Amino acid sequence: LSPQGNKLWGGRFVGDTDPIMEKFNASVAYDQRMWDADIRGSKAYVRALEKARLVSTDEMDQILHGMDQISEEWSKGAFVIKPGDEDIHTANERRLKELVGAPAGKLHTGRSRNDQVVTDMRLWLRDAISTLAGNALQLISTMVERAAAEIDVLVPGYTHMQRAQPIRWSHWILSGAIAGTPLNIDREFLRTELAFDAISLNSMDATGQRDFVAEFLFWASLCLTHLSKMAEDLMLYSTKEFSFITLSDAYSTGSSLMPQKKNADSLELIRSKAGRVFGRCAGFMMTLKGLPSTYNKDLQEDKEAMFDCYDTINAVLQVSTGVMSTLQINQSVMEAALSPDMLATDLAYYLVRKGMPFREAHGVSGKAVFMAESKNIPLNQLTLEDLTTLSPLFGGDVASVWDYRSSVEQYSAPGGTAKNSVTAQVEHLRVWLKKQAQ
Amino acid sequence: LSPQGNKLWGGRFVGDTDPIMEKFNASVAYDQRMWDADIRGSKAYVRALEKARLVSTDEMDQILHGMDQISEEWSKGAFVIKPGDEDIHTANERRLKELVGAPAGKLHTGRSRNDQVVTDMRLWLRDAISTLAGNALQLISTMVERAAAEIDVLVPGYTHMQRAQPIRWSHWILSGAIAGTPLNIDREFLRTELAFDAISLNSMDATGQRDFVAEFLFWASLCLTHLSKMAEDLMLYSTKEFSFITLSDAYSTGSSLMPQKKNADSLELIRSKAGRVFGRCAGFMMTLKGLPSTYNKDLQEDKEAMFDCYDTINAVLQVSTGVMSTLQINQSVMEAALSPDMLATDLAYYLVRKGMPFREAHGVSGKAVFMAESKNIPLNQLTLEDLTTLSPLFGGDVASVWDYRSSVEQYSAPGGTAKNSVTAQVEHLRVWLKKQAQ
Amino acid sequence: LSPQGNKLWGGRFVGDTDPIMEKFNASVAYDQRMWDADIRGSKAYVRALEKARLVSTDEMDQILHGMDQISEEWSKGAFVIKPGDEDIHTANERRLKELVGAPAGKLHTGRSRNDQVVTDMRLWLRDAISTLAGNALQLISTMVERAAAEIDVLVPGYTHMQRAQPIRWSHWILSGAIAGTPLNIDREFLRTELAFDAISLNSMDATGQRDFVAEFLFWASLCLTHLSKMAEDLMLYSTKEFSFITLSDAYSTGSSLMPQKKNADSLELIRSKAGRVFGRCAGFMMTLKGLPSTYNKDLQEDKEAMFDCYDTINAVLQVSTGVMSTLQINQSVMEAALSPDMLATDLAYYLVRKGMPFREAHGVSGKAVFMAESKNIPLNQLTLEDLTTLSPLFGGDVASVWDYRSSVEQYSAPGGTAKNSVTAQVEHLRVWLKKQAQ
Amino acid sequence: LSPQGNKLWGGRFVGDTDPIMEKFNASVAYDQRMWDADIRGSKAYVRALEKARLVSTDEMDQILHGMDQISEEWSKGAFVIKPGDEDIHTANERRLKELVGAPAGKLHTGRSRNDQVVTDMRLWLRDAISTLAGNALQLISTMVERAAAEIDVLVPGYTHMQRAQPIRWSHWILSGAIAGTPLNIDREFLRTELAFDAISLNSMDATGQRDFVAEFLFWASLCLTHLSKMAEDLMLYSTKEFSFITLSDAYSTGSSLMPQKKNADSLELIRSKAGRVFGRCAGFMMTLKGLPSTYNKDLQEDKEAMFDCYDTINAVLQVSTGVMSTLQINQSVMEAALSPDMLATDLAYYLVRKGMPFREAHGVSGKAVFMAESKNIPLNQLTLEDLTTLSPLFGGDVASVWDYRSSVEQYSAPGGTAKNSVTAQVEHLRVWLKKQAQ
Repeated sequence: LSPQGNKLWGGRFVGDTDPIMEKFNASVAYDQRMWDADIRGSKAYVRALEKARLVSTDEMDQILHGMDQISEEWSKGAFVIKPGDEDIHTANERRLKELVGAPAGKLHTGRSRNDQVVTDMRLWLRDAISTLAGNALQLISTMVERAAAEIDVLVPGYTHMQRAQPIRWSHWILSGAIAGTPLNIDREFLRTELAFDAISLNSMDATGQRDFVAEFLFWASLCLTHLSKMAEDLMLYSTKEFSFITLSDAYSTGSSLMPQKKNADSLELIRSKAGRVFGRCAGFMMTLKGLPSTYNKDLQEDKEAMFDCYDTINAVLQVSTGVMSTLQINQSVMEAALSPDMLATDLAYYLVRKGMPFREAHGVSGKAVFMAESKNIPLNQLTLEDLTTLSPLFGGDVASVWDYRSSVEQYSAPGGTAKNSVTAQVEHLRVWLKKQAQ
Repeated sequence: LSPQGNKLWGGRFVGDTDPIMEKFNASVAYDQRMWDADIRGSKAYVRALEKARLVSTDEMDQILHGMDQISEEWSKGAFVIKPGDEDIHTANERRLKELVGAPAGKLHTGRSRNDQVVTDMRLWLRDAISTLAGNALQLISTMVERAAAEIDVLVPGYTHMQRAQPIRWSHWILSGAIAGTPLNIDREFLRTELAFDAISLNSMDATGQRDFVAEFLFWASLCLTHLSKMAEDLMLYSTKEFSFITLSDAYSTGSSLMPQKKNADSLELIRSKAGRVFGRCAGFMMTLKGLPSTYNKDLQEDKEAMFDCYDTINAVLQVSTGVMSTLQINQSVMEAALSPDMLATDLAYYLVRKGMPFREAHGVSGKAVFMAESKNIPLNQLTLEDLTTLSPLFGGDVASVWDYRSSVEQYSAPGGTAKNSVTAQVEHLRVWLKKQAQ
Repeated sequence: LSPQGNKLWGGRFVGDTDPIMEKFNASVAYDQRMWDADIRGSKAYVRALEKARLVSTDEMDQILHGMDQISEEWSKGAFVIKPGDEDIHTANERRLKELVGAPAGKLHTGRSRNDQVVTDMRLWLRDAISTLAGNALQLISTMVERAAAEIDVLVPGYTHMQRAQPIRWSHWILSGAIAGTPLNIDREFLRTELAFDAISLNSMDATGQRDFVAEFLFWASLCLTHLSKMAEDLMLYSTKEFSFITLSDAYSTGSSLMPQKKNADSLELIRSKAGRVFGRCAGFMMTLKGLPSTYNKDLQEDKEAMFDCYDTINAVLQVSTGVMSTLQINQSVMEAALSPDMLATDLAYYLVRKGMPFREAHGVSGKAVFMAESKNIPLNQLTLEDLTTLSPLFGGDVASVWDYRSSVEQYSAPGGTAKNSVTAQVEHLRVWLKKQAQ
Repeated sequence: LSPQGNKLWGGRFVGDTDPIMEKFNASVAYDQRMWDADIRGSKAYVRALEKARLVSTDEMDQILHGMDQISEEWSKGAFVIKPGDEDIHTANERRLKELVGAPAGKLHTGRSRNDQVVTDMRLWLRDAISTLAGNALQLISTMVERAAAEIDVLVPGYTHMQRAQPIRWSHWILSGAIAGTPLNIDREFLRTELAFDAISLNSMDATGQRDFVAEFLFWASLCLTHLSKMAEDLMLYSTKEFSFITLSDAYSTGSSLMPQKKNADSLELIRSKAGRVFGRCAGFMMTLKGLPSTYNKDLQEDKEAMFDCYDTINAVLQVSTGVMSTLQINQSVMEAALSPDMLATDLAYYLVRKGMPFREAHGVSGKAVFMAESKNIPLNQLTLEDLTTLSPLFGGDVASVWDYRSSVEQYSAPGGTAKNSVTAQVEHLRVWLKKQAQ
């Protein structure tokens, strides 16, 4: 096809390079975040080259020195990205050449760009996960200490958004703290991998797959899904109708002069981010689908997804910690929301203890609830006479059922809502947190 | 809870505002792209206020003048975002107050922030879609003209990535051009909506839903899925093994000195973006799921998703146009890839024309293929004797079957691969393109 | 490689066919749902063959008669799927051959399996969408009539899940009804396409793309996202804390003897289905990504996704209609939830009407809210003396602000919450519904 | 609202139960797959009740005996699901009551339906993962043995779908085998969890989260993404243009009489399933987003997703094993595809060994490629005179570069493509496989 022919259908594209393509192709705008990982990786590599006698000790020293200088430029914001620096690796190598000349040309002996990219990403992500783990521990720690301090507060437990049974407020808090831990499992997994004490088994697999990115994106998604659940609960609890908690002004918007417009923006943002981060995961998985093996440029989508998820979950963890540490609970409202019908299961257990099979006791208790509703009185105001019409097993000791605290204290099995059980969860998590801090 | 109490579990969060929360909440970093839409919207609104006698003509003039000044500042890059400007709307209003004083306070009489945001987004998206439509038309136009110019080139048609029947190269090109049109259906839909000749039926629905964003994200995804398919085909065709096309250097990477490392990066990037954009769509849909009605801050995720998809598809359309207008086809290789077994269906049709039912003819043709394979010769080198052992209907005129061009010419029904049919597709699209340009 | 060689690594796979592969490949288990579409399509095709003189009138009649017989067998549940019937098309053709013999072999002259599949799917989906549209209209009609009947009920309007301003309950209902309409836009789009009054422009594009499936999946997702929002609102309103509505027993679970365990399962299921259906859309888009053009077996994923989404949305529409038609509203609770601070915006408008710029009026009103809160009294119990300390514009007529009904009546612009405005929305939708029914 | 009122907007919904709602709510159609897990779980639970003296030894024995009888009925296909059996748990309990009477009523003392569901799912998934692991090991084993047997075959290695460097065919096979292992990491993780040697830390968290399902869905997606990559490679290799491999008829479709229509359906199906399974993961994550804590009926989406992913990946693993064990490689075609320009990097290394910095050597080698192209000869046919014009370091020993096998043998570092290195990978995986089998 002659260039003239080309003009027929796309005249502006006759030049050697299309600037839009160049921009489309370049990644330096976002991958410069890995400047430090790139330098650390190259410093390690030049040492390996020297051991293999592919650079001399003198050349190695020049390169190491040059790299330190580049590192300082980045730290001070003095590094200048020039036209042609399509990615961070090119930029650092170009600068090294300016600083040390010829030896720079030896740095990449036997090392492909793809190796370098994937090593830098692993190094960067190792640090990033360490930061995230720190912030996650801060959030968990806040929740654990809050649970310890507020262990005597009761609140309705809900299933299906309907009041079910009384629970300790701390029990709810800890269900959130526990859900927060998957991140650390992940960290452990990645820590091992990134410490490089194992080598990749197959060179094609090593450069052509991005499992560590996909897994990070999914762990971030799952973690944020848990936080979206916590946020949803807290939004419910902060509606005027529930009024169980009051969010601090630091995490609300709307003027402090307009109380009826105090919005739980922080919680809404936390809830929304589960979608954003999972969208990144979904997008990256779709990009991976059906790719031929080894490196394809499609993999370049890995970096923006990784950075965005890191930034997002990092902010969410910190804001969540802030929200959880500053919200005020309205204990009297919480406990006023407890109602005798929430003890219907306890009423059934009362009968079970007297020898009735559970399914039958459940039926009798249901009839009691219905009777109370028909009489338009709370369940605990049925008389003993009323109850004995339903079962002869009822006696004067049934009065002991109508106590929220003793109800809660029954659930003393591990994981339950009794004080000793919740305390055990607090202690377990404190020990676990201490271990993480080591 | 006393502030002292707070310190137990999160000492650093006792201040009035958490700077991380402020940053988490602010959108001005990305929504400033809508500065022009915001100003246009506010200018229209102040005119409506004047009509309603809620601002005087003089106040309106001051506001309009101030808005024009702000517009000029943005155009020149002179607008300064200040601390507290959490979004573009706040920033413009703050600046207006600095410029015109008191009347600025009347601009938002009876207008909520949520109204303003959603109006600005619709205005911005209307312009954005217009740009995209222009670029899509450019791509389609390139493909149509290319199809017209190269209408005489034959190439194997593939199904299941296996050679099926000979087709015109232009037939393939146009299948891509047609797939590119959905965007315009979308445009028509949105154009109507955004021209404001219809008003929202219900105020709660108007501010609390983002269907127009979700639909844009999905159309972008579907459009890019089509382009990922086109890219996949072109990558196959540019492998050494196929060698049907040669990508221009402007859309390849690797040095021009290293031909064996000339990579089709442009195509790989195009293919990858279907994942990225659909990820945005998936993320936004997940964010929308289960939200209570009316405005929730979760909806703030709409803007980054919309901008990113716009930028991505805009670049993809332009790079695709560049790729399609500059690639060279290797006609001799394409036609050398045609093989007589691809005419097995034609052999069956030959028998159908002599009166044999199609299923039977298909069987006979299959036997001929098998016979040729057993003899290790091409299908067209079976003798008439060979063929008549399979069916007495074969005659000397069977020789006419072995012509790729006449094979192709049989498919002259609309949408087929015959020259007149492909020409009709070209003409249809040229007419359609002319209509779009009006 | 010799078969013996094979045995080294997978002995059980030496036979001609792997039964697992056969099952993996077959689609008849689910595509038999299209039996009627397949028969209608084949009947139309044989008529076209007769016109083209490729079958005789007599052969056509035999085939049409045979097809009617097959149709009857399917209707009566008497059709027997036999080994080798890998899909519905093979099954019907095999049966036709048993019934009419040789002419059956002519039915598929010049018609590929891929054509047949895609035509059947379009025919099936046209009918399916018609059913869905009917159910969607039933839901919308229920909501419109309910809105008409309950137009005098006020309820707090919420943004950010916080009480904002008083609205009519019917205003909320209609915001849901309007969001339900996108399905019909879709229907219109597909109806046009499926009526076959336009032909596919390009044969490669026609068989190799599944835009109509992808678009159906997305419309179903968006529609269910709206219904998930409606379900979320209703779940909130049916918590003990809100108690705005009572769900009928027909759409709740838990024994009627155990009122405190009456769960809004119907609403939870509706909310959950947005995820399921969008998952199908996401999965299908991912399957499409990067496929080469024309038919690839990957496209077989289209059918189960289409059927599952149809079944799901069909059930959701019917259950939603049931929920909306049987729930009881608790008017006194709804109106008791209105509080004077929700009129703070009205207080600002009072000042605007007296000449104060809105931003200033907003500030004064905020101060009034703060003053009331400090005195621990409702906003409407501030005395005129209190108010005049904030602005001299307050007069005795401020008392008129504290009326919820007149507040609501102010919003009489189209789409607003005033009685006439909501009535207009009801009328608009009634007219629209009547048009749909024609 | 009176029932008459209801009739206005939804006459058919006045009855006590809506049959559509009942069907919408029921899960027995699919959760009956867990019948065995449900019985095992209940048998364990009744033993715990006996220990706690909540059932007598005699009652326990009756229940255990009844459960065994139910188990037998399921095994023989004799269990009859009756109206009202909304899920497998209800069905088994109903049947138990029929068999043993009153004691059946005690089985669920202190055990909620939610506990039971989640325990059954974990038990079922533990078995399911064990089956999957077996099938994955079978696939890996097939690949390892194939790699061992075919270690001497060379083939072009591709990056960006372009020929890069010669590699061993076994190196490619093992890159797939290694990518298949993540499933086993997952298995280890879940095995630990499901062995119940750790108890849930918090009861609210235990019943309200489904991390183990979400994680299974994601691992299945990632595993299938790897298999989609392997399938894509194999499809490329089986095109006429590549002709590197021939798929066995057992995994192809199209008649054996029509060789040009032999389609790699098995590979296309494998490729497509990554989308399907990830769609399930995406759908479930979206369903989870923003749910309040503890049990909500939305979680019912977990089971169909889990079952479908299990069935899909289970079939894919088996079909993949079949494909990999029966495909034939065309060694001569593979090795004929090697071309001297793929040794350009080796030419650069030749110069590096003579003391030239790598970046400079890379440039010289590129010039040689360009020179060969200009002369229209293969790279290895440049004369020594030609080469010395580019660098005086070239000598007669450059001839040794042009040997594909010695090129491959250079990559003898762990994970490389040299024979000893690939053999080490084979040995490593054999050892690992042996460990898994224990």
